[in-house]
Amino acid sequence: MIRFYGPDIRTTCSLPEGESSHCVRVLRKHEGDKIEVVDGRGGLYRCTIMEANHKGVLVKIDDEIVLAKNWAPNITVAVAPTKHSDRMEWLIEKLVEIGVDRFVPLRCERSERKELKPDRLERIAISAMKQSLKAVMPQIDATTPLALFLKEFESSNAQKFVGYCDDDTPRQLLAKSYRANEDVVILIGPEGDFTPGEIMSCSAAGFVAVTMGDNRLRTETAALVATDTIHILNQALS
Amino acid sequence: MIRFYGPDIRTTCSLPEGESSHCVRVLRKHEGDKIEVVDGRGGLYRCTIMEANHKGVLVKIDDEIVLAKNWAPNITVAVAPTKHSDRMEWLIEKLVEIGVDRFVPLRCERSERKELKPDRLERIAISAMKQSLKAVMPQIDATTPLALFLKEFESSNAQKFVGYCDDDTPRQLLAKSYRANEDVVILIGPEGDFTPGEIMSCSAAGFVAVTMGDNRLRTETAALVATDTIHILNQALS
Repeated sequence: MIRFYGPDIRTTCSLPEGESSHCVRVLRKHEGDKIEVVDGRGGLYRCTIMEANHKGVLVKIDDEIVLAKNWAPNITVAVAPTKHSDRMEWLIEKLVEIGVDRFVPLRCERSERKELKPDRLERIAISAMKQSLKAVMPQIDATTPLALFLKEFESSNAQKFVGYCDDDTPRQLLAKSYRANEDVVILIGPEGDFTPGEIMSCSAAGFVAVTMGDNRLRTETAALVATDTIHILNQALS
Repeated sequence: MIRFYGPDIRTTCSLPEGESSHCVRVLRKHEGDKIEVVDGRGGLYRCTIMEANHKGVLVKIDDEIVLAKNWAPNITVAVAPTKHSDRMEWLIEKLVEIGVDRFVPLRCERSERKELKPDRLERIAISAMKQSLKAVMPQIDATTPLALFLKEFESSNAQKFVGYCDDDTPRQLLAKSYRANEDVVILIGPEGDFTPGEIMSCSAAGFVAVTMGDNRLRTETAALVATDTIHILNQALS
């Protein structure tokens, strides 16, 4: 059954305008039809359409199911946006498909791109959430300066890893470093790499330098492979 | 140093036309400049340009280095092309970045797309090989009917896995099924899924049904995550 996104479905019994238009104009749903709505916080609602208004579909909630995320630890991924924003859009789609709790675009000294369009990222994340049959949306932060991000996680108990390109620094293999089922924060440097000062700040904040193997990966590939490593180790060792 | 692709560099001491044009017209290299050339079979050649011809750069080979692939087992990935070919192009880029030995586009009964443009796939693979500092190109097959593919691997000693969407069939978790450092063949079904007959043929040819976790992944995400699982388990258990 097709799923819709209604963050306020429980309190308003209605879908937002974009989803309503898709429901009524594209999919031609009408009064009496059954639909499923996810609220992005783990709630899946089976509903019956009461009023097929393309600006705000009204529903009756027939049934409510808790559809919690299917991975245990909290996974935060922070990435300096790539020059081409389609690579970041692709990344958020893939991260939501495989599972992520929080996505933070970072502003670094050598960032190729200073801003991402938050609306567009959110639309892609919603679509990936629905497509991969999830009911939980990740938190997507506004672009955050690296120093602010490091400050937030300075005293965090999560495992903290940072991936960058500098071959001269000794780095551990992430697949051998992560302790399964623990919360984790993954930080991936910009295409132009971190500055030496930024690397020192990461290290001072407790981030351990890692590689994802003996490969030079693009920024978005590194972020995806690192997140996937967490999931695979949690699966293999559970 | 910028790298070029010259599959016949050793015998002809020259670059193909496309690479020559890029070298001379875009990067404005000229006689006497040093360049690096990879042959796609694990050879890296340090060269000096003798004649900067945009139709065929001639070089002198100064030095030859063996740059073998950095993963041990042979990894074959076979995927039914997605409706949108950009998702397949993205997949081949990412597979080459993380490492794959052979890529086979499959023709299945419910394939959304029957053909891929082999030239375009090869161009993307070459670019990803150079970008990720590899000297080995994967074999990229022409689109192959599923039955022919299964016949080839029927008596193979590699571990054989098939991923598809049918929730009714009991499936193993790939992260718990793969025995590290063994050759592997991964088969991913089309967006419209395999037919029941195709699933029976896969099983008869010794392919074990797996999932990549409790997630519904897009075809191209499933292929990437499965390949990544192989690499990560090999890294974690090496």
